[in-house]
Amino acid sequence: MPKNASASALRRLVLRINRLAQVSDERAKTTRTFLSPAMRRANALVGGWMRAAGLSVRVDSAGNLIGRAEASRNGAKTLLFGSHLDTVRDAGRFDGTLGVLLPVAAMELIRSRGVELPFAVEILGFSEEEGVRFSSAYIGSKAYAGLLGSSDLRLRDPDGISLGEALAGFKGRRFTRPRPAHPRAGLMGYLEVHIEQGPVLESRGQAADVVCAIAGQTRAMVVFRGRAGHAGTTPMRLRRDALAGAADFILAVESLAGRRPPLVATVGSVSVRPGAANVIAGESVLSLDVRHPVDAKRLGALRELRGAARRIARRRGLAFSIEVTQDNPAVACSKELTGILAASVRRGEGRSAALTSGAGHDAVIISSIAPVAMLFVRCRGGLSHHPDEFVRRSDIAAALRIVVDFLLHLASRFDP
Amino acid sequence: MPKNASASALRRLVLRINRLAQVSDERAKTTRTFLSPAMRRANALVGGWMRAAGLSVRVDSAGNLIGRAEASRNGAKTLLFGSHLDTVRDAGRFDGTLGVLLPVAAMELIRSRGVELPFAVEILGFSEEEGVRFSSAYIGSKAYAGLLGSSDLRLRDPDGISLGEALAGFKGRRFTRPRPAHPRAGLMGYLEVHIEQGPVLESRGQAADVVCAIAGQTRAMVVFRGRAGHAGTTPMRLRRDALAGAADFILAVESLAGRRPPLVATVGSVSVRPGAANVIAGESVLSLDVRHPVDAKRLGALRELRGAARRIARRRGLAFSIEVTQDNPAVACSKELTGILAASVRRGEGRSAALTSGAGHDAVIISSIAPVAMLFVRCRGGLSHHPDEFVRRSDIAAALRIVVDFLLHLASRFDP
Repeated sequence: MPKNASASALRRLVLRINRLAQVSDERAKTTRTFLSPAMRRANALVGGWMRAAGLSVRVDSAGNLIGRAEASRNGAKTLLFGSHLDTVRDAGRFDGTLGVLLPVAAMELIRSRGVELPFAVEILGFSEEEGVRFSSAYIGSKAYAGLLGSSDLRLRDPDGISLGEALAGFKGRRFTRPRPAHPRAGLMGYLEVHIEQGPVLESRGQAADVVCAIAGQTRAMVVFRGRAGHAGTTPMRLRRDALAGAADFILAVESLAGRRPPLVATVGSVSVRPGAANVIAGESVLSLDVRHPVDAKRLGALRELRGAARRIARRRGLAFSIEVTQDNPAVACSKELTGILAASVRRGEGRSAALTSGAGHDAVIISSIAPVAMLFVRCRGGLSHHPDEFVRRSDIAAALRIVVDFLLHLASRFDP
Repeated sequence: MPKNASASALRRLVLRINRLAQVSDERAKTTRTFLSPAMRRANALVGGWMRAAGLSVRVDSAGNLIGRAEASRNGAKTLLFGSHLDTVRDAGRFDGTLGVLLPVAAMELIRSRGVELPFAVEILGFSEEEGVRFSSAYIGSKAYAGLLGSSDLRLRDPDGISLGEALAGFKGRRFTRPRPAHPRAGLMGYLEVHIEQGPVLESRGQAADVVCAIAGQTRAMVVFRGRAGHAGTTPMRLRRDALAGAADFILAVESLAGRRPPLVATVGSVSVRPGAANVIAGESVLSLDVRHPVDAKRLGALRELRGAARRIARRRGLAFSIEVTQDNPAVACSKELTGILAASVRRGEGRSAALTSGAGHDAVIISSIAPVAMLFVRCRGGLSHHPDEFVRRSDIAAALRIVVDFLLHLASRFDP
């Protein structure tokens, strides 16, 4: 493609990323939550850019923005691109956004080159992925995939509005659960471009690379119960300190995961009762988050941690419980699509070594209706969910080249 | 003394303890805070019981209830008894109360026996010891000892009322800081009867015993700072987890104190930022409470813990700080008074081995104007500051016998 077309598409893409970051429900911050006024403005803005790229645009009954370019031949399958347009509170500019706007730029470049793709392309801007409003993630992609269940519709936001009511209000009529947007047979696959949200690409010195699997995740609540007591009058040997037990467990979690990469396991929150400086802790409640791309390894680690908690509790005279609150299996990316994408990465970056994603993504949901692939893009310090989230312009350019290359090679497989 | 007089004094004492527990600022709970309506009612009720025991009664400008029995001879010194009449929220029946009502019963018994003491006795019901209203303890005994400073008077309660304003309102005129209630030369000493608030007497199978020292106490705030990060995407080896550092420190505190009895050291509260299940902790803030009856040992332990925190922080790539927020030296009880009291304990209990008090008491403040002694009484499970706080009737009886015996032996030293 002409070099100046590529340079101007990149310039436009960066400007659009910055412009979209200003569409917010909060002043001087980037915050867009499900079905909020800012989300409507974001859909209108991004929809305009999609139209300029030659796509036809609609918003579905769950607020998902859908831009579609038909294929050059009849009866062709559809290739999906997408990510989410909602954000966490006080978010960065790239999380989600990049996976919607970069494919739009890629389609502009394909078009400027006069290429007609032998498959249809849909670019999806999901209305909800972060789980901010309803404390439940993936509402947009679930609706698109026909997976929004009646239990989802009963979820309530902090104002007491149910998801079903919110969706009815959005469309101005009773919400009926949508069927999948496409039958599986009509879809070639789904490619999600996303910032890595981790430090691996940075430590490798690489702009972007493919993802082979999205880790499975277990979340649990761990409770230790001992005996509250006066910090001044209870000798050390007569204590049953629930916080000291928690400390033992936190170190056991860290140590186990440290010995088993790519296992990651995290205690990110702890609360103590009564929680006073002069009272020995009677109860401690910890969060536990365990992730691994292989489900058996994750479940094995969880078993070992349960055993560790039991031994700690027995040794200290504490009671304990572990309650699993979330259990998502790992999602494997499509070998075929990922292989084609990895070839594009090798042509652009000189090498490719698949990453695993420790974070969940819309691809997890879309994998139920299509083969999925992901391209991770380096972000500074692995930082995300923060206004300082940053992707270098040259890394955006590299990812754009990879996606255009991927489209052209995919198209070439249809040539006689 | 006649057995039936003793039995009826005990019965009356137990009834009074139960009756006073019903005088409360909160329904169905025992809560009496500084200068509250319940405290006024408590002073009136206990003042009546003091009068019935032959004491003259007044309330000083800080709300302290003072009952006084003059000596049988002129120019005699005064022996002080006392503890506090305020309580924590949702308190038990014995903390503070026992040290006011038990001496009243002892004086009744002395009187019923026809004994005239050769020294004056003052029984003090301090108006504030728990630090509930102004987050600062010992207001009552400080006022009595002439130690209420202008910085104390500027303290404000949660409604924004200063201590000076509260005291002026209580008396209906501007509060002027009182001088000590007695010159040191006029005081024989101070005896405080108090529940142990710990499990040592219970583990020894003993109803009551003397205290040789009240431990010094250091409180500090310990902060570890690392780097917040995504719990799914940050490999274990690239983490700087501020909660894992906190866990290391909590165990170091426990281990050091465990090796150095009677040292006690406690982390009773911890808060984590951002504190989400799926985010690695960027900052953790811990409370630290260190107590020992020997100041040099306490300060040595604090130095070692600072060193431990430094090593933990260095090994984990964390920043750390320790800020001392409170530093109270230990208070030694009077050898002479404690010796006389220990003899009474041996006569009652068959043995005596001095305890140290890990909790602070009004005796800490009164030690500035008089030699002090303390008698600890066994409480079930060492539990205090809780509605289940409990002292067996037979233990109250034992403590009452010890105090009467103490008074009689002290009086006998004046005989020619």
